[in-house]
Amino acid sequence: MPPTILVIHGPNLNMLGRREPQIYGTTTLADIDAALLARGAAAGVNVVCIQSNHEGELVDAIQAHGWDALGIIINPGALTHYGLSLRDALAMLSAPIIEVHLSNVYQREAFRHTSVIAPIARGQITGLGWRGYLLALEWLLAERLPANGTTQG
Amino acid sequence: MPPTILVIHGPNLNMLGRREPQIYGTTTLADIDAALLARGAAAGVNVVCIQSNHEGELVDAIQAHGWDALGIIINPGALTHYGLSLRDALAMLSAPIIEVHLSNVYQREAFRHTSVIAPIARGQITGLGWRGYLLALEWLLAERLPANGTTQG
Amino acid sequence: MPPTILVIHGPNLNMLGRREPQIYGTTTLADIDAALLARGAAAGVNVVCIQSNHEGELVDAIQAHGWDALGIIINPGALTHYGLSLRDALAMLSAPIIEVHLSNVYQREAFRHTSVIAPIARGQITGLGWRGYLLALEWLLAERLPANGTTQG
Amino acid sequence: MPPTILVIHGPNLNMLGRREPQIYGTTTLADIDAALLARGAAAGVNVVCIQSNHEGELVDAIQAHGWDALGIIINPGALTHYGLSLRDALAMLSAPIIEVHLSNVYQREAFRHTSVIAPIARGQITGLGWRGYLLALEWLLAERLPANGTTQG
Amino acid sequence: MPPTILVIHGPNLNMLGRREPQIYGTTTLADIDAALLARGAAAGVNVVCIQSNHEGELVDAIQAHGWDALGIIINPGALTHYGLSLRDALAMLSAPIIEVHLSNVYQREAFRHTSVIAPIARGQITGLGWRGYLLALEWLLAERLPANGTTQG
Amino acid sequence: MPPTILVIHGPNLNMLGRREPQIYGTTTLADIDAALLARGAAAGVNVVCIQSNHEGELVDAIQAHGWDALGIIINPGALTHYGLSLRDALAMLSAPIIEVHLSNVYQREAFRHTSVIAPIARGQITGLGWRGYLLALEWLLAERLPANGTTQG
Amino acid sequence: MPPTILVIHGPNLNMLGRREPQIYGTTTLADIDAALLARGAAAGVNVVCIQSNHEGELVDAIQAHGWDALGIIINPGALTHYGLSLRDALAMLSAPIIEVHLSNVYQREAFRHTSVIAPIARGQITGLGWRGYLLALEWLLAERLPANGTTQG
Amino acid sequence: MPPTILVIHGPNLNMLGRREPQIYGTTTLADIDAALLARGAAAGVNVVCIQSNHEGELVDAIQAHGWDALGIIINPGALTHYGLSLRDALAMLSAPIIEVHLSNVYQREAFRHTSVIAPIARGQITGLGWRGYLLALEWLLAERLPANGTTQG
Amino acid sequence: MPPTILVIHGPNLNMLGRREPQIYGTTTLADIDAALLARGAAAGVNVVCIQSNHEGELVDAIQAHGWDALGIIINPGALTHYGLSLRDALAMLSAPIIEVHLSNVYQREAFRHTSVIAPIARGQITGLGWRGYLLALEWLLAERLPANGTTQG
Amino acid sequence: MPPTILVIHGPNLNMLGRREPQIYGTTTLADIDAALLARGAAAGVNVVCIQSNHEGELVDAIQAHGWDALGIIINPGALTHYGLSLRDALAMLSAPIIEVHLSNVYQREAFRHTSVIAPIARGQITGLGWRGYLLALEWLLAERLPANGTTQG
Amino acid sequence: MPPTILVIHGPNLNMLGRREPQIYGTTTLADIDAALLARGAAAGVNVVCIQSNHEGELVDAIQAHGWDALGIIINPGALTHYGLSLRDALAMLSAPIIEVHLSNVYQREAFRHTSVIAPIARGQITGLGWRGYLLALEWLLAERLPANGTTQG
Amino acid sequence: MPPTILVIHGPNLNMLGRREPQIYGTTTLADIDAALLARGAAAGVNVVCIQSNHEGELVDAIQAHGWDALGIIINPGALTHYGLSLRDALAMLSAPIIEVHLSNVYQREAFRHTSVIAPIARGQITGLGWRGYLLALEWLLAERLPANGTTQG
Repeated sequence: MPPTILVIHGPNLNMLGRREPQIYGTTTLADIDAALLARGAAAGVNVVCIQSNHEGELVDAIQAHGWDALGIIINPGALTHYGLSLRDALAMLSAPIIEVHLSNVYQREAFRHTSVIAPIARGQITGLGWRGYLLALEWLLAERLPANGTTQG
Repeated sequence: MPPTILVIHGPNLNMLGRREPQIYGTTTLADIDAALLARGAAAGVNVVCIQSNHEGELVDAIQAHGWDALGIIINPGALTHYGLSLRDALAMLSAPIIEVHLSNVYQREAFRHTSVIAPIARGQITGLGWRGYLLALEWLLAERLPANGTTQG
Repeated sequence: MPPTILVIHGPNLNMLGRREPQIYGTTTLADIDAALLARGAAAGVNVVCIQSNHEGELVDAIQAHGWDALGIIINPGALTHYGLSLRDALAMLSAPIIEVHLSNVYQREAFRHTSVIAPIARGQITGLGWRGYLLALEWLLAERLPANGTTQG
Repeated sequence: MPPTILVIHGPNLNMLGRREPQIYGTTTLADIDAALLARGAAAGVNVVCIQSNHEGELVDAIQAHGWDALGIIINPGALTHYGLSLRDALAMLSAPIIEVHLSNVYQREAFRHTSVIAPIARGQITGLGWRGYLLALEWLLAERLPANGTTQG
Repeated sequence: MPPTILVIHGPNLNMLGRREPQIYGTTTLADIDAALLARGAAAGVNVVCIQSNHEGELVDAIQAHGWDALGIIINPGALTHYGLSLRDALAMLSAPIIEVHLSNVYQREAFRHTSVIAPIARGQITGLGWRGYLLALEWLLAERLPANGTTQG
Repeated sequence: MPPTILVIHGPNLNMLGRREPQIYGTTTLADIDAALLARGAAAGVNVVCIQSNHEGELVDAIQAHGWDALGIIINPGALTHYGLSLRDALAMLSAPIIEVHLSNVYQREAFRHTSVIAPIARGQITGLGWRGYLLALEWLLAERLPANGTTQG
Repeated sequence: MPPTILVIHGPNLNMLGRREPQIYGTTTLADIDAALLARGAAAGVNVVCIQSNHEGELVDAIQAHGWDALGIIINPGALTHYGLSLRDALAMLSAPIIEVHLSNVYQREAFRHTSVIAPIARGQITGLGWRGYLLALEWLLAERLPANGTTQG
Repeated sequence: MPPTILVIHGPNLNMLGRREPQIYGTTTLADIDAALLARGAAAGVNVVCIQSNHEGELVDAIQAHGWDALGIIINPGALTHYGLSLRDALAMLSAPIIEVHLSNVYQREAFRHTSVIAPIARGQITGLGWRGYLLALEWLLAERLPANGTTQG
Repeated sequence: MPPTILVIHGPNLNMLGRREPQIYGTTTLADIDAALLARGAAAGVNVVCIQSNHEGELVDAIQAHGWDALGIIINPGALTHYGLSLRDALAMLSAPIIEVHLSNVYQREAFRHTSVIAPIARGQITGLGWRGYLLALEWLLAERLPANGTTQG
Repeated sequence: MPPTILVIHGPNLNMLGRREPQIYGTTTLADIDAALLARGAAAGVNVVCIQSNHEGELVDAIQAHGWDALGIIINPGALTHYGLSLRDALAMLSAPIIEVHLSNVYQREAFRHTSVIAPIARGQITGLGWRGYLLALEWLLAERLPANGTTQG
Repeated sequence: MPPTILVIHGPNLNMLGRREPQIYGTTTLADIDAALLARGAAAGVNVVCIQSNHEGELVDAIQAHGWDALGIIINPGALTHYGLSLRDALAMLSAPIIEVHLSNVYQREAFRHTSVIAPIARGQITGLGWRGYLLALEWLLAERLPANGTTQG
Repeated sequence: MPPTILVIHGPNLNMLGRREPQIYGTTTLADIDAALLARGAAAGVNVVCIQSNHEGELVDAIQAHGWDALGIIINPGALTHYGLSLRDALAMLSAPIIEVHLSNVYQREAFRHTSVIAPIARGQITGLGWRGYLLALEWLLAERLPANGTTQG
C-alpha cells in the first residue's frame, strides 16, 4: 500500500474561487486537490484531501487518518486563530505538519497574525497562494521519500 | 542579460553549520548559495547572494540591486524582529519578496514570533530548513518566469 | 419567487424561554420566528430561520442560503466572541448583515463586550430583547424593498 | 399633557449632511428630527430634540428634562468614548435609554469601539443610519406605550 | 428511576492512553468511564458518559440531559479555553458542575491557564489524573446523596 | 514510625466558621483538622496540621517538616497570590503537593484567579469546601499508600 | 478682606440628594455648602462654592478665583477621570488642593479608580460622604490658619 | 468599658521622624499615637495603637482586637500594595475601616498608586500628613459616637 | 476679502506668561496673537485667533469659521489628549491643520505623549515655544499662498 | 570660522524622490540639502549634511561633529523607532536638537507613532514635507543667532 | 570599633546546598558567611550576616543595624519580587546597597525578572554564584575603605 | 599562547569621561582597558578590548574572536535593549559571558530595564561603575583559571 499524505482544509475553503477572489484568487479547491493528487501519484504517494466547516469533523479525520500519514498539510482557515481542539489533535501525531495559508495573513486583520497551530507544526508557508500547497508537498516528498523529491539541494 | 534574483542573508547566517546545529542544522551558507545558484542557472536566472552582519550593508545592497531584481529572497536573521530600516528599504521595491526562516520561530523565544518584515513581504516560508530557500526560488521562478517553473499546478 | 431574508440563531438560542429568563426573557425562539415570518409574509418576503448549536452547521447554512438572500439577521450567541469561521462565512456575502443581541452585552461579563462579527456587519441592535429581531427586519425591508417599509423617514 | 421622549444629539451632529457624507450620509439633523416628531405626534408623544457641542449643556438638558421623560434616545457623538459626565447624568434616570450611532463604529478607528454610555443604556442601535433613530423610537413606543406600537410581536 | 450524573469528555479525550502518554497517562477513557459507572452503581446512581470532538454535540447533549442531572462532571479538553457556547449551555443548569483536568494545566502552555468554564462551575479538580474524575464523583455523591458518600467529614 | 502528611493552612484560615460564612461556610478549622486526622489514622498515616498568619512561619514549617512528608496539602489563603517565598519553600520538596481552596476563586476578585503555587503543585482542588481537603487526602493515600486508598479505579 | 477658600463641585453634584441616593446619600449640595460656609465663617474665612456641569466653567472659575485662594477643595465628579483641562488649571496654583469624593471609588467601576487630579493635589479624602468636605476644610484651616484649627495634634 | 478604636501602623512607620523626612515629615509615631489617644480620651474612647514590621503580626492583631472595635484606622505602609493577607483579615470585620497615607502616593512610584486595601475600606485619607490620622478619628467619632463629634454638618 | 487663517488656542492657554513659566515661558497669548496678526497682515492674510477653556466653544468656532479658512493652526492644550469632539470638528475640514505645542510633550507626563488630534492633522510642531506658531504660519503661507512665503526651498 | 549646524539623515532617506513618492514626495535629498546650505550661507552658518544607512556611521558622525555644532537637525528615518544608540549619542550633546519627519507618522503604521529620539530632542516638526527641514533651520537661526533670524516674534 | 558591613539573606537561603542544587549549587550558607567574615576580618571590617524566612525580621534587622553600616549586601530571595516593606526599609539608608543573586534570574520564570529592590540599590551582581557575594564585598571595601581594596583600577 | 578574554564595549562607550559624567563618571575607556590589561597580564591572560558604535562590527568581532576566548565581558551600551543580532552572535559561544553596566539601569528610563543579552549571559554586574569590569574579570579568572584568582572563597 502506498504511503499517505493527509491534506486538511478548514472552514470556508470549499468556497475558494467564489470567496473574496481579490484575497484568495480564482483557483478552486478542486483545482488544488487535483494538482496535489497528481503530484502525489507521480511520486507514488496517496494524497487524501479533506475539507470541513466543522472543527469536530477535522479532529475526527485527524484521529482516523493522521497516525498513519507520512505527513500532514493543513490550511486551518479561521480555525488557525482559535481551534485549540484541532491543535490538540495534531499535537498527538509524530509525522511532520506543514501549515499553509493562501494569503499573507500579516497584511490583514490583527487576529490573523496569531496561529495556535504554528507552535506544533514543523513549518509554515504563507502568502504564496495555491502554489503554497504544492511546495509543502514537495518538501514532504523530499524529506520523507528522498528518492522522489525534485527540490533537493 | 539574464534576470536576477536577489538573496539576502542577515546577521550570523554566515555561521551556519557551526552555529547551534541542533537548531539550524549542519548545512553551511555556501552549500545553500551553491544550490540556489545551480537551480537559478538551470532556469536561466542570475542568483545574487549577499550576507552581512551589518543592517546598513543590507540596506545598501537592497538599494543597489533591489530595483532591478525579479524577486527577493530574504532571511533577515535577528533583524527580522527589529530591523525597521531593512523593512523600509524592502518596502520601496515592487518585486515580490519572500521571507525565509530556517527554524520554526514559533517554537522558540517570544521575541522571535514577531516579524517587522512580514507585512511588506509577499509570503513567508518558515521552519523548513535549507529547503525553504529552494522552495522560495521555485515559487519565484514559477510566478515570474512561468516557462521555467517545475511546481506549476 | 419571493426574495429571502435569512435569520440565523447561534448556540443555545433554542433554549430561549427556559434559559436564564432573568437575562433572556420568557419569549421562545418559536415565538420570535413566527413573528418574523408573519412580518415577512406581509411584506412579500420569505423569511428562513435556522438555529444550530454547531458552528459548522451555521457556516454550511450561510454557504447554502446566504448568497441569494436579500439580507441576513444573525444572533451568533456565544459565537459572537470567538466564531471566526462564522465571520469568514458572512464576510463572503454582499447583502447587508444585521447582528442582534437580546441582552445588553455591555452589562455582562467582559468577554461579551467584543464581537468578531461586528466589523463585517452593517449594523447591530443590542439589548432590545425579541423586538430587536423585528426592528432588524423592518430596517432590511425599508432599505432593500422600500415599497414595503413602514419606518421610512 | 402628552408623555415626552427626549432625543439628544452630541457634538458635531448639527453638521449632518455636510460632515463627511461618505460616512454619515446626506440626511440633515433637521430631517431626522422632523421624522421623529412626526412619528411621535402620530403616537401622541411629545418628542423633544436637543443638540449641543457642549457636554455641559447636554448634562444640563438631561437634568432638566430627563426625569420626566418616557424614554431617551441619545447619539452622544464623540462623547460616546469619553463623556463620563454625560454618563453620570444618564445613570441617574430610570427611563430606558437607547444609544444610537449612524455609522458602524466597529469599522472605524479603534477609539470608537468603546462606549462609556453603553453599560448604563438599555440597548444600542448602530450602523443603521438615520433609520436607527426611528427604530429606537418605535421600540420606546412599543415598550412604553404598547397601544401605539407598530412593531409588536 | 435512579438519579443521573452526567460526565462529559471534550475533544481528543477519546484518544486517552494513546495520546501523549507522558502528559495524560496510559489509562484509557473506557477505563475511566467503567470506574465511574461502577462507583455510581454502588451508590445507586446512573452515570451517563459522553465524549465528542464537536462542541455542538456537547451542547446538544447538555441541553438534552443536563436539566435532570444530579450533577455534572466535565473535562472540556481544549474547549476549556475558548468553548463559550459550551459555557453558555452549562450556565443554564442549576445542578453543581465540577471541572476536571487530568494534567496540571499551570505547568503547560500559557493558553491552558485560563478556563472559560471555571467561573460557572462549582469547583475544579486539576492535575490529579484519572482519579480526579472519581474524586469529583465522590464529592457529588456526598453532597447530593449524603447517605451514599464515603468521604464525609 | 508512621508516614506523615503535612497540612498547611495559610493566613486567616484560623477564622473559618466566623469569617465571611457566606463564602467560607460554617465549618471550623478544628473540624477540618479533626476529620483529616481521623481519616489519616484509619489509614495508618500521621497527619500534621499547621496554621499561621505569618508567611515566614509557614516557610519555617515546610523546611522543618516538608522533606520527610509523604505528601503536602496546602491552602495558602491569600498567600496563594503573592507568597513567592512560600512557593520557593515548597519547590524544594519532591513529595506531591496538592493546593486546596475552599471557595471557587474564579467567581471572586480578579487577583484571586492567579496562583503562584499552582505551577509547582501536583494538582489543585478548588471550590469544593471542606470536603476538598479530604479529597486531597484520599488522593495522597491512594497514590502514595495504595493499599489504604478507597477511591481506587 | 478675609481669606478665601474655594470649593469646586463638578458635573452632576447639583443633583445630590436626588441622584442615586444609595451611593451618594440624601444630603443635598446646598446642605454641604451651608455647613462649609458656617464652619468657614466661624474661622473668619470666606468660603466660595461653585458648581458646574461644564468643565470650561470650572476652568474659568479656577482662573478667576484660584490664584488668591488660601486653599482649594474640589470634588471633580466624573471629570476626575478625564478632565485634563481642569487638571492643568489647578496645576497652575500654589495653594494646597484637596480632592474629595463622596463614595469609595475603589468599590465602583474600574474607570473610577484613576484620578487625573490626584497627582497635582496635596491630598485626597475619599468615601467619607459629606463629612469629607468638612474634614478637608478643617485641614486647610489647621494648616493655613493655625490659630483657627480644631484638629491640631 | 469604653468603646475601642484600633489604629494599625504597617512596616517602617516606627521610623517616622527619622525616615526620609522630606517625604514623611519629622513627627514621630509616638507623637501621632499620643495625639490620637488624647483625642480619643476626650471623647470617652479607648484608642489602641499597634505597629509592626510583620504582616503576620498585623493579621494576628486584627483577629484579636478587630471584632470588637468601633472603627479601624490603618496605614498599611508598603503592605498597601501587596498585603493580601492583611486585606483578608480586615475584610472579615464589619466596623468601618479608614485607610490613611501620610504622603500623596500619586506623586510617587507607580507601584504606590494601587492599594489592595482600598476596595474593602470605607474610605481613604491620603497626603495630609499626621493630621490625616486625626481627621480619620474625627470621622469615626462623628459617625459612630455622634454625641462626641465636632465636625458634624 | 482677504483669505483667513484660523488660530485656535485650547484651555488654559489664556494664562500664558503667568502659568508655570518654567514650562511655558513668559510670552503672553496676546504677544503671540499680535505676532501672528502682523505676519499675516504682511502677507495679505486675515488671521483670526480664538481661545476658550470650553471644548464646546472651540467646536462651535471651528464649525463657524473653519470651512472657509485657508488653514488652521491649533494648540489644543490638554484637549490634545482627550478632546475627541474637537477632533471630529476638525476632521470635517479639508484645509490643512497644523498642531502646535509650546513644550516638548515627550519630556513630560505620559498622558501628554498621545494626541487624538495628530492623526487628522497635516503636521505637528512641538517644543519650539511661541516660535512654533509662527513657523506653522510660515508653512501655511508658503504652501497655500506661495507668492507670500519666505521659507521656500 | 563660521558656526556649524549639523543635519543628519537616517536610513533610506538617500532614496527620496524615488522612494514611495505618494508618501515622501518627489523632492530629492540633494534638493533639500542644497536649500539648507543656501539658507545657512545667507545667515553666515556652515550647514553640514550627512546621510547614512548605518546607525553606527550616524553615531560616529555625531561624536565627530556634534560637540561643536550650534544645533542639530535630524530625520532619523526608521531609526526613530529603535535607534537607541543614536539616541545615546545625541543625548550627550548640549546643543538643541530638532527631530524632523517628512510625513505625518501618526497616519501610518503603529510602530511609527513612537520615537525614541523625541524625549531627548528640543522639539519635533512632523508631516510638513521638505519644508520641515527649513523651518527647523529657521528656528535654530532665530534662537541661536538672533541677529539672522527672520521669523522672530 | 571596626566598621560594619551588613549581609542579609532572604527566605529559603538557609537551605543552600540542599535546595535545588542544580540551580543554586552545593555551597552552604555557612560556607558563604565564613568566606565573607574571613575576607572582612582581613580588611579590618566586621561582617554581620543575618538570614530569615520572615520579611518582618529582615526589616527589623535593617532598622537595627542598617543605619551604622558601611554598606549592605542583600540577597532578598523571593522577596526580590514583592518585598516592598523590605524595599522601604532599605530606602531609608544612605550607605550603598548591593543586591546579589546566585542564579541568573533572567533564565528562569518571568516573575524573577523584576526586582523591587533594584531601583533603590547601588548595583546588582547576578548569576555569579557564591562568588557574587565576595565580589560585592570587594567592591564595598574598595569604595568605602580604599586602603584595603584589592581590585582597585 | 596565553588564553584570551574578550572585552566588548558597545556604542558610545568610547565617549566615557566626556559623556554625561554625572551618570557615567570621569574614568575614560582607555583607563578601564588599561586596568583590565594589567590585571590580565598579572594572571597570564591576554585581554582583548574592542569598542565599536556599529552593531555589525561587534558581531564580526565576536565571530572572529569569541570561539577561542576563555570568557567574554560585554557592556553592550544601548544595544543591550534591542541588539538581537549581537545576542545571536553571543548565543553561539560556549564560554561564559558577563554583562556589565556602569550605571544602575533600574534608576533610569524604563527602556533600560530590559536586556536582550541577559538571558544568554552567565551573569550581570550593574551599577558598580568601572570597577564592575574588574570584578567581572576577577570572576572569570577565578572560575576559569582557579590558580590565578584572588577572590576565591
